[in-house]
Order: sequence, then C-alpha cells, then structure tokens
Amino acid sequence: MRLHVQNPPGVAHPVTEEQVSAALARHPDMAHLRPSYGDDDAAFAAGIADAEILLTFTREGRKRFPVGTPRSLAPKLRLIAFTSAGLDALQPFDWVPDGVTILNNRGTHGDKAGEYGIMAILMLQTRMPAFADAQREGRWQPLFATTLEGRTVVILGIGTLGGGVARRCKGFGMRVIGIRSGADPHPDCDETHPATALDEILPRADFLVLTCPLTPQTRNILSRERIGLLPRGARVVNMARGAVWDQDAIMDALDSGHLDGCVTDVAVPEPLPADHRLWRTPRMIITPHVSSDDDARYNERTLDILFENLRADREGRPLPNRVDPARGY
Amino acid sequence: MRLHVQNPPGVAHPVTEEQVSAALARHPDMAHLRPSYGDDDAAFAAGIADAEILLTFTREGRKRFPVGTPRSLAPKLRLIAFTSAGLDALQPFDWVPDGVTILNNRGTHGDKAGEYGIMAILMLQTRMPAFADAQREGRWQPLFATTLEGRTVVILGIGTLGGGVARRCKGFGMRVIGIRSGADPHPDCDETHPATALDEILPRADFLVLTCPLTPQTRNILSRERIGLLPRGARVVNMARGAVWDQDAIMDALDSGHLDGCVTDVAVPEPLPADHRLWRTPRMIITPHVSSDDDARYNERTLDILFENLRADREGRPLPNRVDPARGY
Repeated sequence: MRLHVQNPPGVAHPVTEEQVSAALARHPDMAHLRPSYGDDDAAFAAGIADAEILLTFTREGRKRFPVGTPRSLAPKLRLIAFTSAGLDALQPFDWVPDGVTILNNRGTHGDKAGEYGIMAILMLQTRMPAFADAQREGRWQPLFATTLEGRTVVILGIGTLGGGVARRCKGFGMRVIGIRSGADPHPDCDETHPATALDEILPRADFLVLTCPLTPQTRNILSRERIGLLPRGARVVNMARGAVWDQDAIMDALDSGHLDGCVTDVAVPEPLPADHRLWRTPRMIITPHVSSDDDARYNERTLDILFENLRADREGRPLPNRVDPARGY
Repeated sequence: MRLHVQNPPGVAHPVTEEQVSAALARHPDMAHLRPSYGDDDAAFAAGIADAEILLTFTREGRKRFPVGTPRSLAPKLRLIAFTSAGLDALQPFDWVPDGVTILNNRGTHGDKAGEYGIMAILMLQTRMPAFADAQREGRWQPLFATTLEGRTVVILGIGTLGGGVARRCKGFGMRVIGIRSGADPHPDCDETHPATALDEILPRADFLVLTCPLTPQTRNILSRERIGLLPRGARVVNMARGAVWDQDAIMDALDSGHLDGCVTDVAVPEPLPADHRLWRTPRMIITPHVSSDDDARYNERTLDILFENLRADREGRPLPNRVDPARGY
C-alpha cells in the first residue's frame, strides 16, 4: 500500500524517513506500506500519482487540492491524514476530493496539553499573572494563596486536550466539571453537562479552561455576556483558538478586575503584532501556540495514530480520527 | 495550661482567637489550654507573666527576648513555638531563655510547596521564562517542548518542602534524586544521596530544586563552581533562601546561556529594590517569597502542629518540631 508524506518547505517538525521507518518497526502489521517523501511540487505530483494515503500538514490541504482538482491527478487516493488535531483552517471541506476520507490527529496532544493546563491553573492560583506584571515594574508585592484542593474547574470541551487537563486536575484534588456535546460521563470529571447548560455552570467556575475545537457552534462561545456570568475573581485558560472567546471582552474584564487572571496560548491574530493591546493587558500571560505540541514525541504519536486508523480500516471498524465534514472535527 | 499568642502589629495573617477556638474544638485533648492574645508591649508583658507556652512570629523572637532578659519576666515559660519553618533569622540562638525549648513550624508547608515546585518545573519545561521575556517585548516566538516524563530533578533538601515537591514530581513520571544530610531513603525519591555527593550528582540534573534550610552548611551551597557543574541548559528553582545560591553567579549563568531558566521565590535582599539586576535578568522569573504560605490553611496547620508537639511532650515522646540550636533547624 502506497503512503506519500508531503512536508511543507521549512516546517518546524517534518515527518522524516527515519521516523516512518521507526514507526514501521513498531508496527510490524504495517510492513506492507511503501512510503515516499516530498516537500516540493514535483515530489508531490510524483508521490500522489499512485498514493492511496497522503500524510501531510494543514497548510497543504487546500494548496494541494484547490476546488475542482481533477481526480485523475490522485487516482488511487482514498485517505488524507493531517498532523493537526484542529482542522478549522480547512473549513469548509468543499475542496476534499470525491471519495476521500479526512483524518485529524486527535490523540497526539493529551499528555502535553494536560501538563500545560495544570501549569496554567497552578500559575493562576499562585497569582503568577500579577507577579509577572510586578516583575516588569520591579515591584516586590507578596500575594498569598491556598492550594488547589476543592477548587472548581470547568473544562469546555472534553476531548483529548480537555481530558488530559481533567486528569491532571483530579490529581490535585479539584472538582472537575466537563462540558461536552453529548454530556456523556468522563472518568476524570465529577460532572459532565451539555453545552446548553453552560450559562448555569459558569457561575460555579473558579477556573474555566477552553479546550474545544473551533467550529461554527463554538465561535465566540465565551461571549462578553458569558464572561459576565463568571464569578468575580475567576481565572480563564484558553488552549483552544482565539476565536472561541471574545478577546476584547476578556481584555476589558482583566482591566476592570472582574477576572483575576488569564493564561492564553492563542490569540487573534496569530502571530500577535508587537503593538497589540493583548501583550500589555494586566494579569494576562501569553504563550505562542505551544500548549499541545510535543516536539520530541509528536511525529511518533502522529504515525501511531495513522497506523491505528489504517488497522481499523482494514478490520472494518470505524476510523477513530475520521473528520465529519459537517461538524468540522 | 497557659498559652500566650503574640501577633506582631500589622502582620498579614495573625493567629486569631477564632482560629484557636476552632483548633481547640478539633483537638478535645487540648481543652485544658487557656489562651491569651496580644499585639503590643503591654499585652505581651501581661500574657508572658504566667504563660508556659508562647506562640509567635519569627520577628518577635529577638525583639521580645533581648540577650540577658531576666527569667523573672517569663517565669513559667518553657516552650516558644514560631510560625515559620525556617528560623535562620533567629540564629545564633544565644537569646533563648534558659530551659526554653524552641519549636519551628516544619510541616505546614508541604502541600503548598509541592504545588509551587511542580508549577515552577512545568513553567521551566514549557519555556515560560523565555515567553515572559518575549511578552515584555511583544514578540511571538514559539519554542516547543516535550513532557516531563523521564526528566531528572535533583532536590536539595528533602524535608517537608522538598518532600512535597518530590511527591508531585513522581506524579509526572520524573526521576527524582534527593539530597539530604543522612541520605536515608525517601518514599518519593528514586535515589537519595548525602550532600557530600553533590558534585557528582549535579551534572545529571535537568532540574535542580533548592528546598534546604539556610544554615552555616548550606550558605552558598550552590556556589559559582557548582553552577558550572550543572549541564548546559539546566533549570533551577529556589524555594529556600537567597543566600543558599550565589545570586551573582546565577545571573551570569542566565546571561551567558549556561542555564536555560530559573524560577526563584527568594532574593538577596528582600524586598528586592526596584532597580536590582535580578528583576531584569533574562529567563528569570521572580515571586515575592510566597511559595509555601497558604493563607487559608496556614494558621490552622500551625495550631495542629503546636498541639501535636504538646501531645508528644505530655506523652514523653520527642517533640517533632524541636529546633536544635546547634544545627539551626
């Protein structure tokens, strides 16, 4: 079976021949895969001509398959696997060639995201945002805080990221409330509720963690009105996308003191321009979209996930990472 | 039995009558204690005249008992319990009235210190010091990192603080090496070594956490030479005292890039003046001596520890928090 790996030029963590060979050695039942590699147009054209599976990066999706691309350029293609968990940049999915299934990379990010999430919560509890502001001004101003035990965290989106965060929060004795589409129970949540219950749940949040995919339903889900439903002194972590919260309203709530602090890994726009107000909003800590990328293990896990999907396909099981074009994840 | 509680004027977290009453209710076997309270000279003189036990704050030690204080001012006194775990500010112990036992507050700080320690390690692993520098300049510059699993942390001082940090580090799959005077095994350390082995251990440290008391033996224990023994790119957390490391050498090692980052909760001097170089040292994150103070539960635990010592005294057991004036802890 032919697999083509297309890396964008200059990408930080290309999927290498060495990584694929190591993965094939880990998964002897995938020995029939014959991989090819490329990072330019010629290599793509050659590779895709007989590939059944394409492994590539989000930015390559639309670029390699503009709407109306003749099916004859990739006659055998039936699966495109992307290295990102969130494929919002590929919406709408009108460009997907007929009969081709899209896989996301959900599942790579759980451990790393769990560490980022609990780090952010510990930082907010310890008052690190206020200390960071004070350090800029050379101000020594103690603020004390108790431990996390018994505090309530609301996690909006209990998938791989949110589940990883929930697991760590339980380890610190927190009460964990998960918000998910179906409200199914989750082993690391004390309660789960559907998104329709959000307005009743937000007033209970000492911490709110955003880990949902960006979809039409979650765009601006943390609106100005809902920020107002959070208790005074609440803390917010955004590991999702900048567009899931009302960024202006968040900055206003930090300025006014309604929110005690925020840690965000995402922003609108990215990269954030040097003169943007977000950089200088009080008690706002910004990281540059790194919360769930694990440089050493990322591609290893990506390949494990792809192979698990190929195995499911061969055995007639549902593909765990299949993207529903209508839902977008 | 008479207990006098002396709070310094304006202290952030005075031990209150309400807290003592609640503690007496938690410990019915302490019902014979008759407490008095004060925060000025007159209340101290009245309270100490018949008190057997004094509960007070470090800064009151020398102030209330200048060397040569007549024993007749506190004729029944036999125990002074301090609310701090580290009593280095009271050394040398030449001021202690004859026949009086000194208790520290070791044991209050473990959970809180564990949360601070793992927060600091997660921040260093995630490159938060570099991101904090970048935020000051409005610079969006991703740096990626893997998870903590398998990384080595050396913890210098495995008492209450270090033990709390060790426990959290094990929860993240780290390899934990404890340095302690006796090198006794510790349930949350993979290895323990005596301080004499420090020079051989330091080259193995991805992370070094300082949690030792400040004593003549630990002053400048992380000297300029020993900083040089750490591997390039190591990270250091100081939760002990500013004088246990060579602060100038630490700043130089961050400037040169030998160290990747530091989180410190202590400084020389405290409070750190606004124009001090430490505030602006690259990849240095400073918190103002808050790493082990838990505002909500601190006095509650202080009283539990005092009562446990009184119980040991009554039953003829060694007092768990008795300070050895020669060792200083």
